[in-house]
Amino acid sequence: MASYPPAFLSLVENLSRLPGVGAKSAQRLAFHILKSDPALAANLGRDLGQLHGKVRLCARCSYLAAGELCSFCLDTRRDERMLCVVEDPRDVDVIESTSEFRGSYHVLLGVLSPLEGVGPGDLKIRELLARTAPLEEVILALDPDVEGDATSLYLTRLLRPLGVKVTRLASGLPQGSELEYADQVTVARAFAARREV
Amino acid sequence: MASYPPAFLSLVENLSRLPGVGAKSAQRLAFHILKSDPALAANLGRDLGQLHGKVRLCARCSYLAAGELCSFCLDTRRDERMLCVVEDPRDVDVIESTSEFRGSYHVLLGVLSPLEGVGPGDLKIRELLARTAPLEEVILALDPDVEGDATSLYLTRLLRPLGVKVTRLASGLPQGSELEYADQVTVARAFAARREV
Repeated sequence: MASYPPAFLSLVENLSRLPGVGAKSAQRLAFHILKSDPALAANLGRDLGQLHGKVRLCARCSYLAAGELCSFCLDTRRDERMLCVVEDPRDVDVIESTSEFRGSYHVLLGVLSPLEGVGPGDLKIRELLARTAPLEEVILALDPDVEGDATSLYLTRLLRPLGVKVTRLASGLPQGSELEYADQVTVARAFAARREV
Repeated sequence: MASYPPAFLSLVENLSRLPGVGAKSAQRLAFHILKSDPALAANLGRDLGQLHGKVRLCARCSYLAAGELCSFCLDTRRDERMLCVVEDPRDVDVIESTSEFRGSYHVLLGVLSPLEGVGPGDLKIRELLARTAPLEEVILALDPDVEGDATSLYLTRLLRPLGVKVTRLASGLPQGSELEYADQVTVARAFAARREV
């Protein structure tokens, strides 16, 4: 490593700070970029250089925004009475891809996780409570795992006294899956939430 | 995806051009960079922006260089009579890490591969032949696979008539391995190259 030019070593070192990129793959990436069209390095460099200047979190819902508010909060056609709470901005896109929901979003930027030291103060919960005025229903679309369940319970206890209807996404067998391969908890939840046909 | 700010979408798109980075992991990387210390994005952006200006291939051996020549070609203590031929700049570092070799290097930037359309003209072979004047021995340190074998054979035929001793790295069982798990070709080669102890 010591014999590479400093500019190359610096690139390898910074690439290895990315998640899932070890020392070996950082070198492989750097070589690939060096051998590729210089436009790739130039464009990536430009995008990274301007990222924090041009992309921020929406002041209202914490989704990614180019300005003060994100495209959802700026869109007056979205139903302000329905609010969908998610863990991460990526979850918004998954829900949007279904075209099932035309309400507003609120991104918590995480879930409660005592083990990882994430408490209520680390999430966008205060901002969520500030939005309850025009709300009729809050849909908690957090992951159906331990942290998601705990966070949903916590939020429900905060929201229900404010007179807001609180719902969660249905838990059950995923479409197209096989009962034989489903885990116990999923099957138990699907039983508990069974519906008359 | 459509609802992300343009600067973020552009970063995701350019990240997905890297080898082994799909659309999903490009998004994951971009989110990580956005959430990280802005210095990471700034440093990576700077390194990428200046990469092609500050890093080039050594005019003599094709290893990476900050200027006209690389650190090996500039180092007058390296033995000019011994030349080690490798496929890739990374191979140089593997050999250097053994401290076994104090000669010079020559990077071919590939190996002959008719299937991938790589012919002698695509490799740094002309540059290699131009270096034979002070040489006593050329060590072909190419991979022991089909392409490496073919390229070694091709180079041997070119170099031997010039009165240069041509050698290859020993092929055999890797240190610490188990015979039981070795492949046929490796065992056959180890047999053929057996030595009296």
